[in-house]
Amino acid sequence: MADVLEQDQTHQTLQEVNQALENGMFVHVRRMLQDMEPEDIAHLLEASPPKERQVLWQLTDPEEQGEILDELSEDVKDGIVSQMEPEKLAAVTEGMETDDVAYVLRSLPDGKYQKVLAQMDATDRHRVEKALAYPEETAGGMMSTDFITIRGDVTADVVLRYLRMKGELPEATDALYVVDQNEQLIGHLSLSTLITTQPDIEVQEVMEDADEAISVEMDDSEVANLFERRNWLSAPVVDLDNHLVGRITIDDVVDIIREDAEHSMMSMAGLDDDEDTFAPVMKSARRRSIWLGVNVLAALAAASVSNLFEETLDQMAAIAILMTIVPSMGGVAGNQTVALVIRGLAVGHIGETNTRWLLSKEARVGLINGILWAAIIGGVVVVWKGNLILGLIIAGAMMTNLLVAGVAGVCIPILLKKLNIDPALAGGMALTTITDIIGLSVFLGLATVFLV
Amino acid sequence: MADVLEQDQTHQTLQEVNQALENGMFVHVRRMLQDMEPEDIAHLLEASPPKERQVLWQLTDPEEQGEILDELSEDVKDGIVSQMEPEKLAAVTEGMETDDVAYVLRSLPDGKYQKVLAQMDATDRHRVEKALAYPEETAGGMMSTDFITIRGDVTADVVLRYLRMKGELPEATDALYVVDQNEQLIGHLSLSTLITTQPDIEVQEVMEDADEAISVEMDDSEVANLFERRNWLSAPVVDLDNHLVGRITIDDVVDIIREDAEHSMMSMAGLDDDEDTFAPVMKSARRRSIWLGVNVLAALAAASVSNLFEETLDQMAAIAILMTIVPSMGGVAGNQTVALVIRGLAVGHIGETNTRWLLSKEARVGLINGILWAAIIGGVVVVWKGNLILGLIIAGAMMTNLLVAGVAGVCIPILLKKLNIDPALAGGMALTTITDIIGLSVFLGLATVFLV
Repeated sequence: MADVLEQDQTHQTLQEVNQALENGMFVHVRRMLQDMEPEDIAHLLEASPPKERQVLWQLTDPEEQGEILDELSEDVKDGIVSQMEPEKLAAVTEGMETDDVAYVLRSLPDGKYQKVLAQMDATDRHRVEKALAYPEETAGGMMSTDFITIRGDVTADVVLRYLRMKGELPEATDALYVVDQNEQLIGHLSLSTLITTQPDIEVQEVMEDADEAISVEMDDSEVANLFERRNWLSAPVVDLDNHLVGRITIDDVVDIIREDAEHSMMSMAGLDDDEDTFAPVMKSARRRSIWLGVNVLAALAAASVSNLFEETLDQMAAIAILMTIVPSMGGVAGNQTVALVIRGLAVGHIGETNTRWLLSKEARVGLINGILWAAIIGGVVVVWKGNLILGLIIAGAMMTNLLVAGVAGVCIPILLKKLNIDPALAGGMALTTITDIIGLSVFLGLATVFLV
Repeated sequence: MADVLEQDQTHQTLQEVNQALENGMFVHVRRMLQDMEPEDIAHLLEASPPKERQVLWQLTDPEEQGEILDELSEDVKDGIVSQMEPEKLAAVTEGMETDDVAYVLRSLPDGKYQKVLAQMDATDRHRVEKALAYPEETAGGMMSTDFITIRGDVTADVVLRYLRMKGELPEATDALYVVDQNEQLIGHLSLSTLITTQPDIEVQEVMEDADEAISVEMDDSEVANLFERRNWLSAPVVDLDNHLVGRITIDDVVDIIREDAEHSMMSMAGLDDDEDTFAPVMKSARRRSIWLGVNVLAALAAASVSNLFEETLDQMAAIAILMTIVPSMGGVAGNQTVALVIRGLAVGHIGETNTRWLLSKEARVGLINGILWAAIIGGVVVVWKGNLILGLIIAGAMMTNLLVAGVAGVCIPILLKKLNIDPALAGGMALTTITDIIGLSVFLGLATVFLV
């Protein structure tokens, strides 16, 4: 009888585990962990503060530690790996997939890296070294080298016998790859076709031609976009001579899709997309202070603009009171455009052909909202401060700033991308700096001309 | 020979298509579209401005329109569907998967909805009505009802014969479901096990028990988290009596993972996560003005705080010049925490057991960065304005505001979630409002006491 899953039970488990840990019932916790799947243990570790995390890790079954590491997010994995002895780490890698071992090794300092490699057995070491030859964020870096190839001129029955003899297929196999004598990819045969085909039919009659194969050099985000668009479950990877060298499966791609999508959100707030929610305080403080340092410069730039209008500010307090409204609205409007463009660039919707159209659209959106909010805020100011000219000035500044926000919101991320700077990371801050400076200059400038 | 894919070719195609459209070479475009896969046409439509999009849609093969609609993002799909006649729409739904037809029907106004249903053939209508019975954002709403069930007491050979007779398996089938006489789920047999098993072995000896099945009522984001964590390719869906009612496959889940992750980013900027990059100007302007309206209130609240200190501002322009720095730093620091907490809530890392720990961590991070930037900004102000007291005042306000930002950054999203308000949508704005008000009050308040 199946357990019907209605919701995530991590927090119940977490509460039980925490209570048991507090009461020092380590044997009980160890037993609980033994009953759990590696992926659930990984989730539990990710949801635990650092101290509990270390204790829990010590209580996991060493045989399972490789599989658990496979499932951990990078920041948490790095934290655990950095505390392990090379010998222990080498032992743990035996339970891991080759691409994950390669990831772990890449994160280690050089000396430790060599020690771990030296401790591994020869076949494993050879495989890992092969995986390490490809850059991390490419198809080559994420592929597995565990797949089954067949020839096109054998019958379905022969293939079935061959597979029965093997007894087990590599994880997540949904298709067999058909290659010629030179190991060049010519097609693939899905398991469902193999199953529904009459036994005496030859593979080449029912296989699907390999019209498209992924190059080892393809960028991993590009791979993820292709999988998502084509609804692939797996895809073959070939080298530049069309030799089959690996296979990428959807489960690795799902992680990249999640990471890429989270990357934009976390970067826009100035965080690393792999930031561990429960990282130690000093580590978090250090990482985040960098971003605050960038913002200090932006805030000082805005203050310097106000400083240019010191005399105006000296003469009328109402101007100082109202001067934050225009930059604030510009920042919000501009960041809407920035978020839209960052997403569009990430999923590949925006390119040279439609940039101009998008620019004109966002400028018009900015203008329309500029007119709307200029009228409203202008009205509010006239009523509140009883000063018609002040109302007209803030309305003019608002309209200008929202128009600028729309245009800058399109141009900044696209420009940053051309300069190879991550638009998600730098886009929002650059935008806000511009809308702050323009908003303050126009408002204070108009006020200086017409009111002082 | 395979085409080795090295990068996304949409923009090259888009350029070719655009040129052909401009020159009125519609026949040429139609031919180009005929050579493309539905998913690539969908991508092309998503990357096109509204006018080109309509023309392109007219030029697609009506037989393929169902499949293309399946692949479109919701906002773009809604735009196209809303312009189609009920008869045509009913015809197009024949090529679509049931859950997608249900989606399209849900988006239609009532009268049109009924007309389309009436035009569909009886079997299709029946299936769609069944799918419509489940709420949209649940396992029931996303599952497909197309799957294969077998009994446990037959041999692998019998199953293979049965499948050969059927000749074709439902899309993305990686496992067959084993049910008892009452259609209750008792296990599943993966295709790879079926293939590698000796023909005379009974299914129940090699099948995997159904320890876990998804309830029709499970929330779709919860389903996505489970798939991601367990590396599933498909999973059975059961009703409350454990009767097998459907199957969810990874390709539908991938869309939800992407949507959920994008949702946080887009919502934080005040956008709908399905916002079409190339939506018509008026539609975009209207949607975004709502968010600007919320910000106007926040900005006016901040201005009202400054207004309380009108006399202080009247006496010293330097205070007005510097007053934006403290709120700005508080907003940035607080939004880092908000982004972290929103992500943690979304992936299920944060719950009652660790909220207190997180709160204390973020408060300490805020305090450390508060001290650091208080010292730096305080120093800058002393040098710039030659006023020691002003430097001490801004340093005190900075420290207070960054501490508040850390605490509020944890509390606001968690509180909003408890109130069933989307933290990604409202969290950032609520946080900024608080850090603006606290930052201004403390800075201007201290200035009033010590300087005026």
